[in-house]
Amino acid sequence: MAPTQTRSWILANKPEKSVELDEKSSNATFKQKKSEIPTLKENQVLIKTLLLSNDPAQRGWIQKDQDPDRLYVPPVNEGDVMRARGIGRVIQTKSDKFKEGDLVTANTNWSQYAVLGDDSVQKINEIPGVPISVYLGIAGLTGLTAYYGLIEVVRTTNKDSVVVVSGAAGATGSVVLQLAKNVLGVKKVIGIAGGKEKCDLVKSLGADIALDYKSDTFKQDLIDATPDYVDVYYDNVGGEILDLLLTRIKKHGRVAACGAIAGYNDREKGVIKNWFEVISNRIEIRGFIVIDFINKASEIVPKLVQYVKEGKIKLEGSETIVDAIGDEGFDQIPKIWHKLYEGGNTGKLVTKLE
Amino acid sequence: MAPTQTRSWILANKPEKSVELDEKSSNATFKQKKSEIPTLKENQVLIKTLLLSNDPAQRGWIQKDQDPDRLYVPPVNEGDVMRARGIGRVIQTKSDKFKEGDLVTANTNWSQYAVLGDDSVQKINEIPGVPISVYLGIAGLTGLTAYYGLIEVVRTTNKDSVVVVSGAAGATGSVVLQLAKNVLGVKKVIGIAGGKEKCDLVKSLGADIALDYKSDTFKQDLIDATPDYVDVYYDNVGGEILDLLLTRIKKHGRVAACGAIAGYNDREKGVIKNWFEVISNRIEIRGFIVIDFINKASEIVPKLVQYVKEGKIKLEGSETIVDAIGDEGFDQIPKIWHKLYEGGNTGKLVTKLE
Repeated sequence: MAPTQTRSWILANKPEKSVELDEKSSNATFKQKKSEIPTLKENQVLIKTLLLSNDPAQRGWIQKDQDPDRLYVPPVNEGDVMRARGIGRVIQTKSDKFKEGDLVTANTNWSQYAVLGDDSVQKINEIPGVPISVYLGIAGLTGLTAYYGLIEVVRTTNKDSVVVVSGAAGATGSVVLQLAKNVLGVKKVIGIAGGKEKCDLVKSLGADIALDYKSDTFKQDLIDATPDYVDVYYDNVGGEILDLLLTRIKKHGRVAACGAIAGYNDREKGVIKNWFEVISNRIEIRGFIVIDFINKASEIVPKLVQYVKEGKIKLEGSETIVDAIGDEGFDQIPKIWHKLYEGGNTGKLVTKLE
Repeated sequence: MAPTQTRSWILANKPEKSVELDEKSSNATFKQKKSEIPTLKENQVLIKTLLLSNDPAQRGWIQKDQDPDRLYVPPVNEGDVMRARGIGRVIQTKSDKFKEGDLVTANTNWSQYAVLGDDSVQKINEIPGVPISVYLGIAGLTGLTAYYGLIEVVRTTNKDSVVVVSGAAGATGSVVLQLAKNVLGVKKVIGIAGGKEKCDLVKSLGADIALDYKSDTFKQDLIDATPDYVDVYYDNVGGEILDLLLTRIKKHGRVAACGAIAGYNDREKGVIKNWFEVISNRIEIRGFIVIDFINKASEIVPKLVQYVKEGKIKLEGSETIVDAIGDEGFDQIPKIWHKLYEGGNTGKLVTKLE
C-alpha cells in the first residue's frame, strides 16, 4: 500500500560558522518534520529514496547571509527540506515517462519520499554488475566534475608532467587522480589526503606520491615532491593547502578551482595569502561548476563507465556507504553528511536509506 | 671631460615589511655610495642617466626571504645598486651599435652613470613632439603592460559591457581605462582610485564612473555602479579591493592580475577571503608579466604612439615627473620612488635627474 506520510529533515537555522547538529538546540541547523504526501498530479511521480548523495557544496547552499545572485544554484531557505541528490525507486506514477519500479536520480532531498515533476527526474539505465551507488559517484556528477575540471577546464594532457590533486581520497579527487594517471598518462601524479589510511588508498589508486597534509612535515614533503614544480593543481579544498600550492605551481601553470571545503565552516580558514605568486608565476586559475557541463553527461558518463570496466578507474575505495536504514537510521542523516567536513570518509560518501 | 666617478644608491638591507628610508638608520633599506667608473671594454657604453622609472614591482625585487626560483626576474641582492629602468644619453662608446649622444633605455639603475654591454641597451627613435618620458610610460613597459593584460591576457573586446580597473590614476591603470573606453569601445568603464583629485583625472581620461576607494561608501558605491556585475577586472592592487571585486565579477567573468601593491609592504593587507566566489561564479584569473610579451613590443608600441596622436590616449595626467636634479636631488631618489606606495602620484612616476 502506498505510504501517506513522509519524514524529512528541514533547514531550521542557516549556520553562520559551524553547523549545529543537536536537533534540540535552539540554534539547530536541521530539524525533522513529518508531513502528508500530496496526491500526485499529472506528470508527477512518487519516489522512494534509496540513497542520498553527500556533497561538500551543500554547505554553501545553507550558509547564512548570502547574496542569491552570487550562488550557482538557489539557496536552501529556512523551512525547506534540505536539498540533496538521491537515487530512488518510482513507486507511483502519473507520468508516461516513468513506470513503477523505475530506478531514477533526482533531488529527492532529505526525505523518505518525494513527489516530483517528471522533468526533474532522470531514469537510470542499470548496467549489470554495477552497483547503483555508482550513479551518484563515478558515473554521476562526481565523475563528471572530475572529468570536466581536469580535462576540459584546465586542459590536462600527457604533456603535463606533474599533476597535484587535493582531497585525493575524496569522491572527486580519487577520480581525478585516476583519470590523470591511468587515462591521461601523466608522468607524476601527487595526491594530498589526511592520514595514513587515506594516503594508502591514494597510492593504491595509482598516485605516484601520496602526501599527508596532517603530517608536521607536510610543507617540506610537498617541496621535496615537486622539485620541478607543478603543471596542474586540481583544488578540492582551498584554504591553506591551496595557499601553499600557489608557491609550487610552475610558471604558466594552471589551477582548477573545484571546491573550498577548508573555508565552508570557517571563512578564516579559507584565506589566501600568497596571491603575488599568481602574478609573478603567471598562474591561470579557473573556477568551475559541473552544471555548466551537464549537457555533455550523456557523452562522458559512458566513457567513465568504460574506464571502470577497463580497470582504469577502480570501484574499490570509490565510496563510503553509511547505513541509515529504518526510523533510527533516518535520524542520522545530518550527522552522516557532516562527516564530509570532519575528513571521515574516503571516496563518495553515500547515505543508504534502504 | 668624461666623468670618473658616479654616485649610486645600493640596496643595504632587504626589508621584511616597511621600507626604511632613513639612510642613517642601522636598518636603512638603501645607502649611497660613490665609486670609480670603470674603463669601457669592447661592446660597452657609458650612459648618463636622465630619467628613472618608478615601478611598483621594484618592491618585490628587494623583499627579504624570497625564493629566487619564484621571481620573474632575479632579486636585487644586498650590496647591489638598486635596479631601475631608465632613459639616458650615451656619452662614451666602445660599441658600433651606439654613437655618442644616442638616447637609450636600459637598466641604468639608481646611478648617475652606468656602464652597460650594448646588448642590454635599446636605442630610442625619438619622435618629434613626443617628450622622452613617454618611452618609460605609454610607449614603454607601462603601455605594453596595459595592452597585454587587457587585450591579450583576458581578451577584452567591445562584447564586454563592464570593465573595472583599479589603480586607475596610476601609470598602467590610466592607460588601461583609455584603451578599454577609447580604443575598444567598452560600454561602461569604471576606474577605482584614491581621493577626489585622482578620481577627477580618471573621469577626464574617459572613464564612465570613477570610484574613490578611500570613501566610506566605497563598497556600496561599487555595488551601485555594477548592477549587472563586471565582465573584466584589471587588477593593479590586489588585497581588499580585489577581494571585494571577486564578489562583483559576472559569472564566467575574468580577472587580469597585474599587480598587488596592497600587499607589497604588508602581506596581511594582501589577503583574499572571498575565494569561494572564484568557484561559484566560475571566475577566470590570469596572472601575467609584461616580459612575456616583450617580443611584441616593436609591433604594439607604434600602435600605442598612434593612439596618443589620435587623442585616444592622453598624455595629460599620464605622468608625474619629480625633479631630482643635481647632488641634492640625487639624495631624494628612494623617497620619490616610495611615493608609489603612499598613493602620491598620478600616472607614471618618473624621477628626473637632468
